[in-house]
Amino acid sequence: MPDPRFASLTTPCLVVDEAKMKRNIDRLGQRADDLGVTLRPHLKTTKSVEAARYVLKDGNGPATVSTLVEAEVFAKAGVSDIIYGVGISPDKLDRVVALHRAGCNLTVLLDCAAQAEAVAKASRDVGIMIPVMIEIDSDGHRSGLTPKDADLINVGRIVHENGAALRGVLCHAGDSYNAVGRTAQAACAKAERLAVVTAAAALKDAGLPCPVISVGSTPTAHAATDLSGVTEMRAGVYVFFDLVMAGIEVCDVSDIALSVLTTVIGHQDKKQWAICDAGWMAMSRDRGTANQQIDQGYGLVCDEAGVVIPDLMVLQANQEHGVIAVRAGSNGIMPDLPVGTRLRILPNHACATAAQHQRYHVVPETDGAALLEWPRFGGW
Amino acid sequence: MPDPRFASLTTPCLVVDEAKMKRNIDRLGQRADDLGVTLRPHLKTTKSVEAARYVLKDGNGPATVSTLVEAEVFAKAGVSDIIYGVGISPDKLDRVVALHRAGCNLTVLLDCAAQAEAVAKASRDVGIMIPVMIEIDSDGHRSGLTPKDADLINVGRIVHENGAALRGVLCHAGDSYNAVGRTAQAACAKAERLAVVTAAAALKDAGLPCPVISVGSTPTAHAATDLSGVTEMRAGVYVFFDLVMAGIEVCDVSDIALSVLTTVIGHQDKKQWAICDAGWMAMSRDRGTANQQIDQGYGLVCDEAGVVIPDLMVLQANQEHGVIAVRAGSNGIMPDLPVGTRLRILPNHACATAAQHQRYHVVPETDGAALLEWPRFGGW
Repeated sequence: MPDPRFASLTTPCLVVDEAKMKRNIDRLGQRADDLGVTLRPHLKTTKSVEAARYVLKDGNGPATVSTLVEAEVFAKAGVSDIIYGVGISPDKLDRVVALHRAGCNLTVLLDCAAQAEAVAKASRDVGIMIPVMIEIDSDGHRSGLTPKDADLINVGRIVHENGAALRGVLCHAGDSYNAVGRTAQAACAKAERLAVVTAAAALKDAGLPCPVISVGSTPTAHAATDLSGVTEMRAGVYVFFDLVMAGIEVCDVSDIALSVLTTVIGHQDKKQWAICDAGWMAMSRDRGTANQQIDQGYGLVCDEAGVVIPDLMVLQANQEHGVIAVRAGSNGIMPDLPVGTRLRILPNHACATAAQHQRYHVVPETDGAALLEWPRFGGW
Repeated sequence: MPDPRFASLTTPCLVVDEAKMKRNIDRLGQRADDLGVTLRPHLKTTKSVEAARYVLKDGNGPATVSTLVEAEVFAKAGVSDIIYGVGISPDKLDRVVALHRAGCNLTVLLDCAAQAEAVAKASRDVGIMIPVMIEIDSDGHRSGLTPKDADLINVGRIVHENGAALRGVLCHAGDSYNAVGRTAQAACAKAERLAVVTAAAALKDAGLPCPVISVGSTPTAHAATDLSGVTEMRAGVYVFFDLVMAGIEVCDVSDIALSVLTTVIGHQDKKQWAICDAGWMAMSRDRGTANQQIDQGYGLVCDEAGVVIPDLMVLQANQEHGVIAVRAGSNGIMPDLPVGTRLRILPNHACATAAQHQRYHVVPETDGAALLEWPRFGGW
């Protein structure tokens, strides 16, 4: 039976299941408590002040962001302890300083002497000790110094001795997204912990401060069994989860709190296709399950209530068209989907799909309550 | 030498080369004139009123759109002849009617009886003959009836005899994006033309009107040699072009008018990587060149002036990080790219990359003139 609350929505649009989202948030919050670390959620997934209230401790607690626009929006909303988790470039320091002047204690991330010198100079120029985390690399995934890199102490000294504030070390085990199952993810978490703890010890041995020791990725945060020596963990996509996370067994498909509401706009009967109005503009071009054991195409199809229709998927996508079909080789049966039928598509990657939209429509936990609308923002 | 006009820009951001864009627009405009058809540009690529003034005939001429938000924005800006080129669903008819009442002659697209009945009913209910194009399929790519499908006449009759206005037939040869080279694309154009001309003849034979006969995709629009019987052609991405279009030889890499300005934020020296702040959030997740002869990763790297640095590409991307490296197996040399260096990345797919941003920064054709800023919009 169609949900009358969806009737006024224009498709495609984002739908959030509040109950699932709260369950996902509680799950990781409990883990952080059990592991004895502070949870510093990454707000890049939701990019919404309203969603952040659920995610942050006491609604306003420590946060991670991926852009300065996020820092600016959340600072204005009252979040005052933020790590900007992407390597700082000198041209962005004016905005960092402006955030400090506005009362937000924004920490920047860096991994080389040139960055450290730029941050130290900006600190001296304006008389603000800009807090700095040094990025540590545990898996060769992206940025960061290895924990035993000789540059580590050098970078730390430039920060500490020239006017900025050395706050600690930070690692993101990006390769954990390719680790399938709890055991493999726990190994990534172990490597992530070892990397930061080793780097912190090296800094301390050199007489440098390192009060904050930060790790995190959604897979490692859910798999870590020992975070001794670590002070905080970060994660982002756990709030919504998605098919990529389900594919590596961090969550179940039934935990996914984000979907795209779509309308059937046509058929190709001979091919057993239904065409819907959720193309890649609505789903994003993210094909993160393409190399997983089960390729979910551009998403799994649910009925309007969010119940998965077995083996029905978005097989391919054009800009504003999604092609819905039964998975090849499966026992799935193409249901009758007349033009106008509303469906919900679970995304491969919640961060990418959410970024294609300007607002969330939230189905409240309370049965039958009116939908909430949360704006979201983008940009840099 | 750094361009001082870029100094105030926050990266990542979109940069448009006005001279290249005008050249691309003129090229297809001339082709349409030579072929004796009206050009009806697709505004889904640029989604900008300012850009549309360049693209549309006399700044306001006939247009194609992919969303009702596009129709609403461009109608408000004075564009009064628009085809909404995605199959209509009944729930969207209220907005179609509102556009007509506001003076925009919006044509809808459909390919089945249920849609035709819904449009005819809406037309009768409000006393407006909503114009309708029937979608024709020439290559099995997506939506549409084949030209000899028995439903064609049935659908045409429902439209024509029940209150709506049958305006014509429309085909988009989506498979032309996979056709490499002029000869293959001309074959797609021939099939596209044959499909609509055949369908139009069938409708006319049945006593139904079919004044507008519309074809188009960027590859077929550039390859067609004979459009006899066709009245108009549509294309979108030709305004900017991109690496996918260059990969199938519709344009040269030097024709690409859109790039993403980025800043170098770090290095992994042992891997010969530079890290920049254009990740997939800025480039989109589109990997349209992945299956082409030359895989361009997440884009080709140019210097700040837009000159390609040979064999330098964005090898991989995270949300806000791009990894720049020399193409494996090439003779490319990694240049010295200190932190803070500005570069420009040519995108795989201009429609997808542009959609990740809220504005264009336009480098004017006139040497040294101040940058222009064109807002762009999204949503449905």
